[in-house]
Amino acid sequence: MHLYNFFNSSTSYRVRIALALKGLDYQHHGVNIRVGEQSTEKYMCLNPSKGVPVLVTDDEQHLSQSMAIIDYVDKIYPSPSLIPADNLARSRVLELSNIIACDMHPVNNLRILAYLKKEFGISEEQKKVWYQHWINEGFVAIEILLTRHGHGDYCFGDKPTLADCCLVPQVANALRFGCDLSAFPKVLAVYEHCQQQPAFQKAAPNQQPDFMA
Amino acid sequence: MHLYNFFNSSTSYRVRIALALKGLDYQHHGVNIRVGEQSTEKYMCLNPSKGVPVLVTDDEQHLSQSMAIIDYVDKIYPSPSLIPADNLARSRVLELSNIIACDMHPVNNLRILAYLKKEFGISEEQKKVWYQHWINEGFVAIEILLTRHGHGDYCFGDKPTLADCCLVPQVANALRFGCDLSAFPKVLAVYEHCQQQPAFQKAAPNQQPDFMA
Repeated sequence: MHLYNFFNSSTSYRVRIALALKGLDYQHHGVNIRVGEQSTEKYMCLNPSKGVPVLVTDDEQHLSQSMAIIDYVDKIYPSPSLIPADNLARSRVLELSNIIACDMHPVNNLRILAYLKKEFGISEEQKKVWYQHWINEGFVAIEILLTRHGHGDYCFGDKPTLADCCLVPQVANALRFGCDLSAFPKVLAVYEHCQQQPAFQKAAPNQQPDFMA
Repeated sequence: MHLYNFFNSSTSYRVRIALALKGLDYQHHGVNIRVGEQSTEKYMCLNPSKGVPVLVTDDEQHLSQSMAIIDYVDKIYPSPSLIPADNLARSRVLELSNIIACDMHPVNNLRILAYLKKEFGISEEQKKVWYQHWINEGFVAIEILLTRHGHGDYCFGDKPTLADCCLVPQVANALRFGCDLSAFPKVLAVYEHCQQQPAFQKAAPNQQPDFMA
């Protein structure tokens, strides 16, 4: 398999965690989204959405969208399972994951922040307030859901799931932006636990071949 | 089942289509997100994310996030199936669905447009350009994916899937905002076909009890 990704992209990081948890090898292709490599004609053949990550499967399928990629990998390589089979457990994992994937990350990613700055001329301070606002909205909800339904060292139990694949990169991103997450102790506890695990460490931005300090 | 939703919300509309395709009855609860009903203390007990839709299941579980809700409904009531079992077919459905759910809808929904206007003071014209920009980015990709992988009257074949549940509300929303979608003939063809189907008609905004002209 080949993974086109960027070391610092949250959605790339999600997929790298999933692949590492399953012990799968792949060829890493760095796509520098800071300089627009995702918008070249060549890359757009790979992914017309101009985003990372893209998984090229062993049978040459090009698959985009991190949530679709992780679902696919979980089907093809079912052990360890990252999306529970039990209906209710599954729905709680997907609910939390989608708060991050649909509510939090999309409004705070590079292309949105770039648009806000370029087209609306927002200041660095306004950008920070925008970023923190959506982080807060999301983590307030996640903290409550973890209180209601979470248990164990990971989001849901003693084994990692898709929810942890989504949560860790979002927390890392928020910390990188200087957000104060002290109001979200359960979120932070899961993050800290994951940070100690080899698969999560292997998937971290600073361990990638395209890492830039 | 109870569905807390808003007639004009795309994510609500997705779930209503899925429920209608499966012929499932539910109690409709209108939540007027235009006047902030999603931010009341009572509603936030139901959904700390302050969003619609929320499904209250027969066993009293409160489930948010439209993609998680549809996955849950598809597991509990598997016929007709909306998310294919075949790995590759499944991944194509999830890929297209997530372009809408993660790339398009989150940046153009009510809370984001309200923030842009209130905090950054953008004009109606700037709002329109922002909206159309992300619609274009998404539908360019979807048009290509439909060309590559689509077939039949729906996105993927002759039966509706989650992809159609996501596509129809997004097209409806774009048309409501006055977007020119003529560059996306495959997207429009799927939309027009779906509009003729009773389940899609039943789920439409103007058929809901909380509809306001």
